[in-house]
Amino acid sequence: MFALHQEKILVLKYSLLGSILSNLLLVLGTSLLCGGLVVKEQRFNHKQADVNALLLLVGLLCHVLPLASRIGSGAAAVDLSRACSIMMLLTYAAYLYFQLKSHGQLFSSQSPQVEGGGGEEEAVIGFWSALGWLVGMTAVIALLSEYVVGTIEAASDSWGVSMSFIGVILLPIVGNAAEHAGAIIFAFKNKLDISLGVALGSATQISMFVVPLCVLAGWIMGIPMDLDLNLLETASLAFSIIVTALTLQDGQSHYLKGLVLLICYLAISAGFFVHKIPTSDQGSTGDLELKQS
Amino acid sequence: MFALHQEKILVLKYSLLGSILSNLLLVLGTSLLCGGLVVKEQRFNHKQADVNALLLLVGLLCHVLPLASRIGSGAAAVDLSRACSIMMLLTYAAYLYFQLKSHGQLFSSQSPQVEGGGGEEEAVIGFWSALGWLVGMTAVIALLSEYVVGTIEAASDSWGVSMSFIGVILLPIVGNAAEHAGAIIFAFKNKLDISLGVALGSATQISMFVVPLCVLAGWIMGIPMDLDLNLLETASLAFSIIVTALTLQDGQSHYLKGLVLLICYLAISAGFFVHKIPTSDQGSTGDLELKQS
Amino acid sequence: MFALHQEKILVLKYSLLGSILSNLLLVLGTSLLCGGLVVKEQRFNHKQADVNALLLLVGLLCHVLPLASRIGSGAAAVDLSRACSIMMLLTYAAYLYFQLKSHGQLFSSQSPQVEGGGGEEEAVIGFWSALGWLVGMTAVIALLSEYVVGTIEAASDSWGVSMSFIGVILLPIVGNAAEHAGAIIFAFKNKLDISLGVALGSATQISMFVVPLCVLAGWIMGIPMDLDLNLLETASLAFSIIVTALTLQDGQSHYLKGLVLLICYLAISAGFFVHKIPTSDQGSTGDLELKQS
Repeated sequence: MFALHQEKILVLKYSLLGSILSNLLLVLGTSLLCGGLVVKEQRFNHKQADVNALLLLVGLLCHVLPLASRIGSGAAAVDLSRACSIMMLLTYAAYLYFQLKSHGQLFSSQSPQVEGGGGEEEAVIGFWSALGWLVGMTAVIALLSEYVVGTIEAASDSWGVSMSFIGVILLPIVGNAAEHAGAIIFAFKNKLDISLGVALGSATQISMFVVPLCVLAGWIMGIPMDLDLNLLETASLAFSIIVTALTLQDGQSHYLKGLVLLICYLAISAGFFVHKIPTSDQGSTGDLELKQS
Repeated sequence: MFALHQEKILVLKYSLLGSILSNLLLVLGTSLLCGGLVVKEQRFNHKQADVNALLLLVGLLCHVLPLASRIGSGAAAVDLSRACSIMMLLTYAAYLYFQLKSHGQLFSSQSPQVEGGGGEEEAVIGFWSALGWLVGMTAVIALLSEYVVGTIEAASDSWGVSMSFIGVILLPIVGNAAEHAGAIIFAFKNKLDISLGVALGSATQISMFVVPLCVLAGWIMGIPMDLDLNLLETASLAFSIIVTALTLQDGQSHYLKGLVLLICYLAISAGFFVHKIPTSDQGSTGDLELKQS
Repeated sequence: MFALHQEKILVLKYSLLGSILSNLLLVLGTSLLCGGLVVKEQRFNHKQADVNALLLLVGLLCHVLPLASRIGSGAAAVDLSRACSIMMLLTYAAYLYFQLKSHGQLFSSQSPQVEGGGGEEEAVIGFWSALGWLVGMTAVIALLSEYVVGTIEAASDSWGVSMSFIGVILLPIVGNAAEHAGAIIFAFKNKLDISLGVALGSATQISMFVVPLCVLAGWIMGIPMDLDLNLLETASLAFSIIVTALTLQDGQSHYLKGLVLLICYLAISAGFFVHKIPTSDQGSTGDLELKQS
């Protein structure tokens, strides 16, 4: 929120994207890998994963549409982003109702269910407490982001590392360390459903709740925050969601699945490490032609 | 067909695309939502959905190839579109044989099967009657499209709404109203297989039969109709197919799945609402650079 | 390797891509089609297919990242490609260990398992013999590629067919004829698991072992070989992997599935047939605007 005030929209976008990616690939990958090293074949409730994958796909669509619209017709997509944000919030509200009220048994396969933040057992707390947690946590994220945006550019300069790498990769690893640790511990204990709940729940929450809330907050403050990530970022997000959905669809896990997710995370990290954000005066799409040696 | 004569290719493309989108997302979404509100968890025969998803993916490929070829090398893709259209028709013929002759039991899980048009029970009519229906229905669509193309531009001007929104969103909602109603009624009666048959069958039929037929008819008349939708349109189609395939793959449904499909439809509608078709003298790809505030 | 020396990187890339495509679509499609014509519904072990699909997705990501990075920021992606190649080789090593040592029973559903080359029964030979086979086979491919690169350009000129069509389509059909024959014969005998092992195993091996090895060999020799296929090529690869994954995910097969894969291969072939590689002085992305008649 405060980052919006300073119009550091880009850093905010990057750190939110990075949180989604790290939850989907890093946390989930480490969980599956660690769990797979302990138990040869783990089983989990794949319905929960399916619902989360669907929600994440809706979020992805809301990032793809502004990008495609901008590439296709050259217009900025602020209005479209705001409309999409409202739909995302409605979808998330329906998802909360679905999860906590109407179809709760779908999510509670073997143990008290964890979703969202730092390992709280949300299945035993009610709908409004859960909503309260969400709002509180988002405020914390917003407060942190002010501090973060202030120092990230200095770090980028002094370390010689691209800002996108810091925002998408380094920041979320530090920021979500507690969640990561929790998910991995549960995986070691062969309680994979809880690990999945933490990782997928966090990713869904950021994608469908925090991101649109930032866009709407920006709208209120008159800041043109939109959902338009750039090409590499959107492609990474799409890939993460598809790989995660395919990994989790059959309700079984072994260590190779975890390793594949981790490798995807490493490859995407490498992509952002070499990624330079083009300055606005430098045309960036004039080189789609095939490079012939 | 007649729309081709008037070289209103764009409107024809838009309304065909819109029919596919509305069947996949709007009709299917409303069916799953309504069915899910009546029955907590509905089951259906997912084999039928899998086959339809595969067919739709072939159709998608035939739209992606001309687009990628045009972006990559700048050549118009009329020849490629015509070759793809012939393949699509062959695939559809094989699909009809598969569905009606060789593997009919795959599709008849619990009730007489409905496919294509306005709710006719095609499983009890033979192969040739089905083919007759298809040809007849296509003629009706062609006749209507003449009327439609004539008035759509006037409407676009007088209402101040973009032509793509009218073609992709408004037109198919009106045009397919009967199908929509039928599918939703069957969903309320917990006969989800029939709803799926109507929605997926119509989408497959338009994608793999009507679209290539239009391209070939244009070929005969010397009109350069191709399969090259633009970027936003192709992305929307790809997304619809992937979301539908993921939604239907496990043979179970609840209301959140229907809601997700409807939200996707709303988001895509919003995308077309703000979408401006670039005029040909205005370069449209020169702005892929990241917008930095 | 020798092709690298002559800096005929493009032809090498094309023939490797073509090998993956022909294994995924042509060999697999013919196997499913022939098997489906003999037996109405064939069953197979879908876990093997799932693992291979995941590996292929990692390979796809390593092709998408350099492409997206180049389109987004205009920088060549040689460093990124080399980093990705090392990750791909590590993943493939883990996959070999997974397949041959730790989870071998996952792959041996009904008969001695075949993977990689020309039909050798690798499940009965050990880890190191398998590795030896891989290295030996790769050397043969490298030797052949020298001969191939020498003659392909002459053929392209004299036949009037585009180089990309020869490299992606014609070459792999001839080069992999033995594998194709083997896979189809096993399909006729209703041993679909072996056919899948040959087709998917070969595709995975080329994608995750031969391709990164070529990049690293080029690195040693100082040749800027990267993983950056162009747009049409990457789109074709992505499509092939997604269609294959969806086709094989439920462990059942009928002839329509095989036919769909074959049609996809034909459509992609047609795409490469009309595809002209843009010369470097001709801007190729300036025409993303919608073609209005």
